[in-house]
Amino acid sequence: MLTQPSIAADARIMLSACAAPRRESRDHFSDRFGGRGYDTVEGLCSDPDVEAIYIATPHQMHRDHAVTALRAGKHVLIDKPLCVDLEDAQAIVDCAEETGRHVIVGPSHSFDLQIQKTLNLIESGEFGPVRMIHALNYTDFLYRPRRPEELVTAEGGGVVFSQAVHQVDIVRLLGGGLVDSLCAATGSWDPARPTECAYSAHLTFRSGAFASLTYSGHAHFDSNEFCGWVGELGNDADPDSYGKARSALTGVASASEEAALKSMRTFGGVGALPDATHNEHFGPLIVSCDHADLRPTPDGVWIYADGEKRFVPVPTHGAPRRAVFDALWAAVREDRPAIQDARWGLASLEVCHAILRSAGTRTPVMLNHQVPVRGRS
Amino acid sequence: MLTQPSIAADARIMLSACAAPRRESRDHFSDRFGGRGYDTVEGLCSDPDVEAIYIATPHQMHRDHAVTALRAGKHVLIDKPLCVDLEDAQAIVDCAEETGRHVIVGPSHSFDLQIQKTLNLIESGEFGPVRMIHALNYTDFLYRPRRPEELVTAEGGGVVFSQAVHQVDIVRLLGGGLVDSLCAATGSWDPARPTECAYSAHLTFRSGAFASLTYSGHAHFDSNEFCGWVGELGNDADPDSYGKARSALTGVASASEEAALKSMRTFGGVGALPDATHNEHFGPLIVSCDHADLRPTPDGVWIYADGEKRFVPVPTHGAPRRAVFDALWAAVREDRPAIQDARWGLASLEVCHAILRSAGTRTPVMLNHQVPVRGRS
Repeated sequence: MLTQPSIAADARIMLSACAAPRRESRDHFSDRFGGRGYDTVEGLCSDPDVEAIYIATPHQMHRDHAVTALRAGKHVLIDKPLCVDLEDAQAIVDCAEETGRHVIVGPSHSFDLQIQKTLNLIESGEFGPVRMIHALNYTDFLYRPRRPEELVTAEGGGVVFSQAVHQVDIVRLLGGGLVDSLCAATGSWDPARPTECAYSAHLTFRSGAFASLTYSGHAHFDSNEFCGWVGELGNDADPDSYGKARSALTGVASASEEAALKSMRTFGGVGALPDATHNEHFGPLIVSCDHADLRPTPDGVWIYADGEKRFVPVPTHGAPRRAVFDALWAAVREDRPAIQDARWGLASLEVCHAILRSAGTRTPVMLNHQVPVRGRS
Repeated sequence: MLTQPSIAADARIMLSACAAPRRESRDHFSDRFGGRGYDTVEGLCSDPDVEAIYIATPHQMHRDHAVTALRAGKHVLIDKPLCVDLEDAQAIVDCAEETGRHVIVGPSHSFDLQIQKTLNLIESGEFGPVRMIHALNYTDFLYRPRRPEELVTAEGGGVVFSQAVHQVDIVRLLGGGLVDSLCAATGSWDPARPTECAYSAHLTFRSGAFASLTYSGHAHFDSNEFCGWVGELGNDADPDSYGKARSALTGVASASEEAALKSMRTFGGVGALPDATHNEHFGPLIVSCDHADLRPTPDGVWIYADGEKRFVPVPTHGAPRRAVFDALWAAVREDRPAIQDARWGLASLEVCHAILRSAGTRTPVMLNHQVPVRGRS
């Protein structure tokens, strides 16, 4: 749903077919895009006109859907996270390599243009190596309407699988990809929503760089305040609409009523997207190099360097998630793999699992599946 | 030097004597305050009119000076940190307990009025237990003029002993005092100033709360930007005076020239203090409780609660460090020990050492000398 405007605005993409168990979803799709509707993934995958499949199903279904699509010779774009279990992730990686098809994991905020620009600035070498990264994000994530499984960690619910993966993708991208070890703690503070609502993680990279990642989806404070009051989706956030998510939820009587509210945001629902006049973002971020601190914002990158500070503006693409489809196009039509491929997705997922494991055992966790930023030094 | 205006403004305090090896310092003191000047600490401690001694000597001298003063029956206020070595810290603790005299470690930003107010709000119980604390501070600390030993870790130099101790004091105060374990990394990025310039630490408390502490004294970004452009000393910071410390240092030819520049800031020097129209602070801070995030700022505390957000203003005291002398007065004249006593100072120092040790060994460190917030639940 959140990605649909970007697809609609992209002349390179034709939505030629979909798979959905519900007839209304298929009909809505056909009415709107003129494409064919299948009631199974297998049906969709047998359609010879389909080059790539966008898998936006719940996380725990990603493995089956991805393997089916890849075996049918399709490239796939998989909504982050790659999946929930590391074993499933490895199966997707293996299948992509066997079939020679491309997998891209996204949209994720590591595609945001100001993050990509920050990566370019780091790679210019002008500011020396990355030494320390600081990322924080305070949101009302856990108090937005949720389907029941989104509040169950084992099913990929909670902030670690849904939200940490964004922060981890961004920080791995800017830190070179190779996380060495981490220590973390998670919080689960609301018995009515018994999954991880917050975490703090301390990461070290093989390069010697280190990073601090903090996320609260239980937050009352909104860290958009530190981002010029721009919301996650690039919209103008309203500082005066305090506490809307929690107060809306107060009026909800049951889990099914809440799930119905949530489904308003899925495809075919009537939820409207806010106007995005800035780039999307995932909270305040400071990247410290020897000769500058780099601070991506929704509108560009602040460079605080030895001799001067300056702002490098990064215009929006019009459709905010276009970078994801640039990557998909490059992979499908030019055989150029994305940074955020299946191995990258596995590596980020490993960090998410390590956050949970470190929090549970109160010991550091060593990482084994990390990959560097593809095609980079 | 930074504390002197608070002393001058406090009618309860008479500066009746000092000890200083340099005659000019003693003469300046006598001219200004009419007090007696001694050339040794022993001399000062034998003065029967002296009730309490403020030890503002370099960190590595604190033990000898404190023990001498305590044995002479004086109470002492010791500039943070308590000292550098844990063994010295234990000796001061033991001596304070043997002599029954009071030790206060400060000024430290844990005395800042908005921090004290945040503690009161936590203790009100209205918002539930503290779950997560996030503290960051980006400054040009390492690029201000330094004496040579301030750039040598073993002599108490670098950001861990001078700066972490503030952040640790604040976070321990708001988290209940009892740190269980920590993981940390430190950075030393400038060969010309070869000591710790930055750190990131992940702390867990015995209560289950956790905290993330990040500090850069190598920073180009100035986190006062997230504090309404108020500087550490409560002054209005100028967003347009970018990079002043580094550029001033560029013109300095030698360590001795730099030390001379630094001595302008010590007592008897001519450095002027900026106007403090706000409270002092030590960077952005977010304390997450079950039912609110509390965010102390130089002018008060933001309470982002379940149903509403509100700001509780905290007026300045006029003299910003008055809270330290309130604590000294309570200890000396009313026999009420301060929270920030010798044991507290030892506990905070232990955390600083643990940051260095964890960074060196890349393993977590367990804490053994922690104490709860005195007189609190």
